[in-house]
Amino acid sequence: MSSAYEAPLHIQLLALEQACRSTGLADLPEVRQLISDVAGSVLESAGKFAREVLSPLNGVGDRSPARLEAGRVVTSPGFSDAYRQFAASGWMSVSAPAEEQGQGLPHLIGVAVSEMWTGANPAFAMCPELAIGAIEALHRHGTVEMRERYLPHLVRGDWTSAMCLTEPQSGSDLSTIRTRAEPDGDAWRLFGRKIYISWGDHDLTENVLHLVLARTPGAPQGVKGISLFLVPKRIPSAGGALADNDIAVLSLEHKMGIRASPTCALALGERGGARGWLVGPLHGGLACMFTVMNVMRLGVAVQSLGIAERAWQLARDYARTRRQGRNAAGPERPIIEHADVRRMLLTMKSLVHAARCLTYTTAASIDVARRAEDEKVRAAGESTAGLLTPLAKAWCSEIAVEVSSLGVQIHGGLGFIDECEASQVYRDARIGPIFEGTNFIQAQDLLGRKILRDRGAALTALLDRMLDAAAVLPAGVAGLGELASGLTSGCHALKRAGGTIIETAAGDANLIGAVGHHFLQWLGVLAGGWQWALTAAEALPRAHTDATARALVDTAGFYASHVLPRATMHEAIVRRGADPVTNAAIAEL
Amino acid sequence: MSSAYEAPLHIQLLALEQACRSTGLADLPEVRQLISDVAGSVLESAGKFAREVLSPLNGVGDRSPARLEAGRVVTSPGFSDAYRQFAASGWMSVSAPAEEQGQGLPHLIGVAVSEMWTGANPAFAMCPELAIGAIEALHRHGTVEMRERYLPHLVRGDWTSAMCLTEPQSGSDLSTIRTRAEPDGDAWRLFGRKIYISWGDHDLTENVLHLVLARTPGAPQGVKGISLFLVPKRIPSAGGALADNDIAVLSLEHKMGIRASPTCALALGERGGARGWLVGPLHGGLACMFTVMNVMRLGVAVQSLGIAERAWQLARDYARTRRQGRNAAGPERPIIEHADVRRMLLTMKSLVHAARCLTYTTAASIDVARRAEDEKVRAAGESTAGLLTPLAKAWCSEIAVEVSSLGVQIHGGLGFIDECEASQVYRDARIGPIFEGTNFIQAQDLLGRKILRDRGAALTALLDRMLDAAAVLPAGVAGLGELASGLTSGCHALKRAGGTIIETAAGDANLIGAVGHHFLQWLGVLAGGWQWALTAAEALPRAHTDATARALVDTAGFYASHVLPRATMHEAIVRRGADPVTNAAIAEL
Repeated sequence: MSSAYEAPLHIQLLALEQACRSTGLADLPEVRQLISDVAGSVLESAGKFAREVLSPLNGVGDRSPARLEAGRVVTSPGFSDAYRQFAASGWMSVSAPAEEQGQGLPHLIGVAVSEMWTGANPAFAMCPELAIGAIEALHRHGTVEMRERYLPHLVRGDWTSAMCLTEPQSGSDLSTIRTRAEPDGDAWRLFGRKIYISWGDHDLTENVLHLVLARTPGAPQGVKGISLFLVPKRIPSAGGALADNDIAVLSLEHKMGIRASPTCALALGERGGARGWLVGPLHGGLACMFTVMNVMRLGVAVQSLGIAERAWQLARDYARTRRQGRNAAGPERPIIEHADVRRMLLTMKSLVHAARCLTYTTAASIDVARRAEDEKVRAAGESTAGLLTPLAKAWCSEIAVEVSSLGVQIHGGLGFIDECEASQVYRDARIGPIFEGTNFIQAQDLLGRKILRDRGAALTALLDRMLDAAAVLPAGVAGLGELASGLTSGCHALKRAGGTIIETAAGDANLIGAVGHHFLQWLGVLAGGWQWALTAAEALPRAHTDATARALVDTAGFYASHVLPRATMHEAIVRRGADPVTNAAIAEL
Repeated sequence: MSSAYEAPLHIQLLALEQACRSTGLADLPEVRQLISDVAGSVLESAGKFAREVLSPLNGVGDRSPARLEAGRVVTSPGFSDAYRQFAASGWMSVSAPAEEQGQGLPHLIGVAVSEMWTGANPAFAMCPELAIGAIEALHRHGTVEMRERYLPHLVRGDWTSAMCLTEPQSGSDLSTIRTRAEPDGDAWRLFGRKIYISWGDHDLTENVLHLVLARTPGAPQGVKGISLFLVPKRIPSAGGALADNDIAVLSLEHKMGIRASPTCALALGERGGARGWLVGPLHGGLACMFTVMNVMRLGVAVQSLGIAERAWQLARDYARTRRQGRNAAGPERPIIEHADVRRMLLTMKSLVHAARCLTYTTAASIDVARRAEDEKVRAAGESTAGLLTPLAKAWCSEIAVEVSSLGVQIHGGLGFIDECEASQVYRDARIGPIFEGTNFIQAQDLLGRKILRDRGAALTALLDRMLDAAAVLPAGVAGLGELASGLTSGCHALKRAGGTIIETAAGDANLIGAVGHHFLQWLGVLAGGWQWALTAAEALPRAHTDATARALVDTAGFYASHVLPRATMHEAIVRRGADPVTNAAIAEL
């Protein structure tokens, strides 16, 4: 029904360079060298793997989801073999630290590569993404023994990992976790039930390392009493033999999308206790888990980007070939020539590019925070990454839902039929706003933690960079003047609104809850405009001779006229504050 | 997992009365009497049927879709029995004309009742909706013999109907239809293939009356050469015996949603020709089919409304019971108390109510056009209905996608799981913007036919009614002053933009294509504000003593602050005209 996923290498490299420049990552000579040496070839080779191995399995996984057999998960046909090739090709280790036998490439490259896995097969791609988070967590918080015993397996990809947070009564609010860990010599025994565990069991590898949040005896109430444990599906002996731990798969969810990704309900400790080892400090579990969570949140931005890119590819290709509707001259035209189809395609493309650049910029900021020599530069990178991570997660995931819906619409009736990949893409996209912290949790993180705590310092710095980008756009080029003025007025308005929220949030318990969503989406729209301003400024000198550069400048103008007007809508809502939300007598409706 | 569908009788009756008043239907004494006599009891009884018979089958149909067996469609378990009860209770005949042995109730009541069928079970509800369209078409365009032989069966519900337009090469553009009809005595023989035929075959009744668009020998090119034929699945003899016609079911589509509704690919005439009879004038098929299409387009508005109402019910009930997150006092709170959840619920509710009132107003306008004694009043009703039908179809179907997505979001991870009805609702909603003319086809109809042809006369009349409604809102009540001012400035701006389009469309071939979508959605947002203004004005005097009236006034204010700002976004896009869409070098992207 449709052609295979094709990695958009040219535009990915362009976005990668843009992120390097705008974050200052390009100022680190070692990184700049690394990127110019390997980015092109790594991306090309990853694109080939995505197209040839992962993309053909995407529909297979949707039609034949993972299933439970004799208490163990059997993955979709072909997934096990694809994973073996994936690990054997070294793809698991791309951005893993060199100290842990990883390739030590920048996260930026890792993210560009992950975009391809998830564009080709989002259900598959979640599995390595979880391992990246676990590698990060064990690298930073694990004991020496843990790092020696477990990390090489994760980095090689011969084991994978899962993140066990949610329990039936404990979703967005982790303070009510009931899974308990009891001391047992130098280890612990865990008892409890976890739900919605992505890739919580499978047959791709012989072991799964669970990272489990649990409560220890006498621990303080709430999130301050939660600890993180490494609980392997099978426990390795010193000699390397594996013995089953006490973890049972109770059931698998049947889901709307990403159906090849097994979502497990797990029971720990039904036969005496699942053996686990403490990761990080006792009662410091939430902070350690956030190492994984932040990777996964950026991972959702990447996943959403990949899904949106795929929606765009399918819609563009369909619009080029499907003929419908005559023009005055007589012959039927490919629907890409119809203005409304162009409008939808340009909306998709302008959002996908904005999402890609924003996601890459987040990754590049993390690289700056890790790799810069100057402590101040590292701190600035850290604070930018902190601000951009929830933004990228929540904005890109909403974008993916919108873009995949436009993709369905362009396909017409076919878009509603299972055999059409656009319909799967639409279902797959819907998880993004929900998991790894709902999009409201992201808005709360953005406003409540990242903006209120430093009283807007990081936000102001970001908005100033956005204003700088707007300032260099030439007013005389169609669309770009509009982009500059819309972005400039938007940034000033958001700065003011942010200031008001900082002043009043303490006295208005519902303010962040009531306006957080629209505040985040507003910043997202502006950040997308910022990225388009950077792209347009770079492309403009080549626009007369280079058709792709011309198209980029045009699409920047389209973003200004068709997407940027959302900013004033979000602004109007944010400025009304909490009253409309809190005053309504909703119970009577 | 969830409670049964519960018809919102109180708010439906309120919307019904509002539509009667605002369209002038209430000025027709006979209709007013009819409505006050029967609306309450008919709605109550329909609500009971929807809750008890149709709602329990909604999930069944999703899990066990219609299937093909030995060349015939077998419907989902329970559907056949439910349909028998439906027909036996006389539900098929509610708004059918009295001359055809129908109950002759206003379309307004028919639409309110249809909302319940589709709220409870949208896949089921499509089947009677198609028959309503066919009854209308045969009543208006059928021969006396046709009306005697076929109509009583449709009105009693012992036969159903299907609408056969689309062919593989002919979707939005019907000019390329290839199915041909050859004369055969007093009848015709049809040959061709039709796809996407909803309820094109089934086991609910012993016969299906197909309304088929086809081309006759020597007919003019394009849509002016298309004729409409009645082609029964089984041909009744004078004595009542049924003989199989030459129509084969080639396949059934596997769909994202409304899975219990069998979507057939049909072959006509593989064994010598399917016998058919001409409906309406030769080569006048498209106009006759539009009798059905207009019913079905309003039907999509109703379906979208029902789906959105169901999404709201499920989300509200879940938010009342699901506890998550503590407040300062300690205990966990039902999530309906969290500001962001309230924001989502209020967005849903404010959109659902606007969609209901707009849909009912469209139906009431049709009743005015049919039943008013004064010819001018009838003509005004006709032109309002003509304007509102594409608006209601396209706006309400976009709303349903949005509202059902918010419903998923409120359910969190559960919303992504098949067993959660909210997830089905999300998939079911996605067809609305596509079928019975894509939403762009609606925008083209609205601007190209309904607005350009009378040079904005009907639009101006509608906007003036909206301005009148805004003018009577008191400025001093929180939210209502905002509603009045937003609605007023929006109507003036849209009037200006409409005027510009009327002046320039003839010289700008891409204008309607480029701005049609946003123009329609803009008018929709304002029309929703109009309906909320009418509701708020009526509720306000009771708001101090009646909690429901209070909640309605509050929600009108919420619409003003959170939904109405979309108007300025659509305005900005429309005012930019075609350039951003047509100038972009999309081929290079």
